[in-house]
Amino acid sequence: MATPKPQTPVVDIHTHMYPPEYISMLSSRASIPLVRTFPSSPDPRLVLLEAEVPALEKATGSGDANAPGTILPGRPLTRHFTSLSQKISFMDTHNISISVLSLANPWLDFLPANEAVSIARSINASFEEMCGAHPGRLYFFASLPLTSPLEAILSFITTALPSFRHCRGIILGTSGLGSGLDDPAMLPMFAALADANLPVFLHPHYGLPNSVFGKADYGHVLPLALGFPMETTIAVARMYLAGVFDAVPGLRMILAHSGGTLPFLAGRIESCLLHDAKFAGAVREQGDRRRTVWDVLREQVYLDAVVYSEVGLKAAIEASGGGKEGAARLMFGTDHPFFPPLGGPKGAEDGEWESVRLNADAVGRALGEGSEEAEMVMGGNAVRVLRLYEE
Amino acid sequence: MATPKPQTPVVDIHTHMYPPEYISMLSSRASIPLVRTFPSSPDPRLVLLEAEVPALEKATGSGDANAPGTILPGRPLTRHFTSLSQKISFMDTHNISISVLSLANPWLDFLPANEAVSIARSINASFEEMCGAHPGRLYFFASLPLTSPLEAILSFITTALPSFRHCRGIILGTSGLGSGLDDPAMLPMFAALADANLPVFLHPHYGLPNSVFGKADYGHVLPLALGFPMETTIAVARMYLAGVFDAVPGLRMILAHSGGTLPFLAGRIESCLLHDAKFAGAVREQGDRRRTVWDVLREQVYLDAVVYSEVGLKAAIEASGGGKEGAARLMFGTDHPFFPPLGGPKGAEDGEWESVRLNADAVGRALGEGSEEAEMVMGGNAVRVLRLYEE
Repeated sequence: MATPKPQTPVVDIHTHMYPPEYISMLSSRASIPLVRTFPSSPDPRLVLLEAEVPALEKATGSGDANAPGTILPGRPLTRHFTSLSQKISFMDTHNISISVLSLANPWLDFLPANEAVSIARSINASFEEMCGAHPGRLYFFASLPLTSPLEAILSFITTALPSFRHCRGIILGTSGLGSGLDDPAMLPMFAALADANLPVFLHPHYGLPNSVFGKADYGHVLPLALGFPMETTIAVARMYLAGVFDAVPGLRMILAHSGGTLPFLAGRIESCLLHDAKFAGAVREQGDRRRTVWDVLREQVYLDAVVYSEVGLKAAIEASGGGKEGAARLMFGTDHPFFPPLGGPKGAEDGEWESVRLNADAVGRALGEGSEEAEMVMGGNAVRVLRLYEE
Repeated sequence: MATPKPQTPVVDIHTHMYPPEYISMLSSRASIPLVRTFPSSPDPRLVLLEAEVPALEKATGSGDANAPGTILPGRPLTRHFTSLSQKISFMDTHNISISVLSLANPWLDFLPANEAVSIARSINASFEEMCGAHPGRLYFFASLPLTSPLEAILSFITTALPSFRHCRGIILGTSGLGSGLDDPAMLPMFAALADANLPVFLHPHYGLPNSVFGKADYGHVLPLALGFPMETTIAVARMYLAGVFDAVPGLRMILAHSGGTLPFLAGRIESCLLHDAKFAGAVREQGDRRRTVWDVLREQVYLDAVVYSEVGLKAAIEASGGGKEGAARLMFGTDHPFFPPLGGPKGAEDGEWESVRLNADAVGRALGEGSEEAEMVMGGNAVRVLRLYEE
C-alpha cells in the first residue's frame, strides 16, 4: 500500500481585511476613500474608486438612496471585510490552510504625514495579533506609512517590521511616495525591503482616469476589470524602465492579478525598447548582458494566480519561464472579501464563492488537477517563497 | 515521392501607408497629427501622439533641434511610409505575397466635416489605384469620413465602398463618431458594415492620458507598448458591455496587436460582470443563453498576430478557442512601416526587419514551423476571411 502523499497546504496570498480602527478612520473622511451608511442598506458602504464618486454624490445629495432599486455607491462593508472569525470561516469553507492577510486598498496612502507612523504601527499590530490568535494559519503583508518622511519609512522597515513575527512582506500601491514606483526616491525603500528579505506585494488601487471608460454606466466593470490590471502593468513597466530591478537585484515583487497584463505585453514592451530612439542604442550595445522584461519575470517577479481563466493562467506561467520553472512562480489567491457571490439566496456569502472557484479551477485546468505543479501554485510556492513554516 | 504541398501565401494584414495627399494635409496642420521638417533630420518628422507634444514644443521653440544628439519629436517619415514601390520591396524582402494595406492612424478622425467625404473618397481611391497596379498582391481596408454626418457615412459605406474592388474591410480607431465605439449612434454604421460583409480592423491611436505614465522620459515606450493595447482592450470591452456584438450579430472585428490585452483579461471581465451589482442579476438570469466575452472572441472577433512573443500568441490562440479553431482566427501582420530597425548600419531599413521576424518567429514557435496551423496564421486565414482570391 502506498504511503499517502503529505498534502501540500492550500495558501491564499491575496486576501484582505480592514481592521476596526481603519474603518473608523474611513467613516470620518469627507473624500474617497470613505465609508458611509445609508438607510436602505443593511451594511455601511465602502467607496474606494474615483469611478464611484458620481454615484456617491447622487446618493448623498438627493435622498434617492432610499428609493427601491437605487444602486448605492461602492460596495457593502460586510463582516467579511472586518471580522477575523469570518475570515477563518471563509478559509475553512474553501479548504484554505493558510492565509497571508493584507490591508485592502488604499492602505495608508492618504494619511496625514504626522499620523502615518503611529497609525501604521497600530494597524500592523492588529494584523500581528490576528495572526498570533491562529498559529500556523495566518501571516500578513505589512502596510507602510508612505506619507511620512523617507527616513521614517526606512526606520519603520528596519525597526518596526522585524518586531512583527508574522510579517512576510509588504503590500504596496502604485503611488509609492506620491510620484509612482519609478521615483528615484523609492530606491532606498526597495533596497531596505530587499535587505530585510521582504517581498513587495504590488496591488492596484488608482486605476485609470475615468475619461478612458466613456460616459455609459457599466457599473464597476471597466475600472475593476481593466483599470486595475492596466495600472499594475504600467507601474511595473515604469519600474523596469527606471532600472529599479537592476539597481536592487535582491528586490522581489509579487504582482497582483497575475501581473495585470504584463505576461501578455512583455513581448511588446521588449519590441518597443528595441525600436525606440531613446533605448535602441543601449539595448543593442548591452546585447545579452541586458536583463530583459522576461528575465525580470523569471527572476525577480512572482505572480498571484488571480486571473479567472485558464488562458490567463497559462500565459502567466509561460511568461514566468514555462513548465515547472514557471509554475514555481505563481501563487494562488482569492481576493477575498472582494467579489462575493451576488444575486444568490440569502446566506450565499457563507457558502462557496464562485470567484474563488474560478481561480482554483483555472489552476487545475492549466496544470492538471492534483498535479505537482498545481499543488505548487495552490500553496507550495507560497510556503517556500514566504517562509510560512517559520514563526 | 510526395507531391510538394502548394505553398499557402504569406499575407500581411497589418501594414500601413500614408498616400501623398495625406502627408500634404498633415504638413499644413498646427496641432497633432502633423508633419514637420527639421534641418538636422534628413526626413520630415511625423508627430502623432499626445506624448510627443512636449518634445515637439521643445524642438520647434528653442532651436535646440539642430544641436547634435537632440531627440526630435515623433518619427522620421521615410519613404517606407509613402512609397508603394518601397512597400512592394519590403514585401519581397520578407516573402510576403499579399498585403492588406490600411491608412495609418489617425486616419480621417480629425477632418473638418465638410471636407471629410471628398478627402475620404480621394484617399481610398489612391489605395484602390495602388492595389490595381499590383494585381493579386494588394488589397486594402478603407477609411471612413467619420466626422461627416451619419447619413453621409452610411451612404459612403453603401455606395462609395463597393466601387473599390480591392476594399476588404475598413480600418477604425477607438473614437468612432467622437464618443467611442459604444455610442449607440455607431450601431447603424456597424450594421451597414456587417450587411456589406466588411470586417472592421480596430486599431488604437489615442492611447491613454499622459498622466498615467509618470514624469520620467522613457521615449515612446509606454504609450506604444502599453497605451495602445490598453486603448484597444477598453474600446472592445465597451462595445461588448453596450451589447454591440449582440445587436449586430453579423459584425466581424479584427483587433490590432492580438486584441491589445483582451485574451489575457477576458476571464477577469467575465468575473467582474458576474460580481457587479449592475450586471450580476441579468448574467445569472440569462445563464447559458448569454454570449460571453469568450463567445465573442470565438465567433465575431479575429486577432492579428502582432504581439511579439510566443507567450502572447499562444494566449491569443487559446482565447480564440484553442487548437485549430483558435489558430483559424489569428492573422499575421507586420505593422510596417512602424518599428523599423534602429541603430544598425545605413541601409538596414532595406534589409530584414527584426520587428517582422519577432512576430513570424512567434508563430513558428507557438504552432510549429511550417505546420498547417502556422500556415493558416501566416496567410491562409486572411485569404479565407478577407476573400483575397476574388477581385
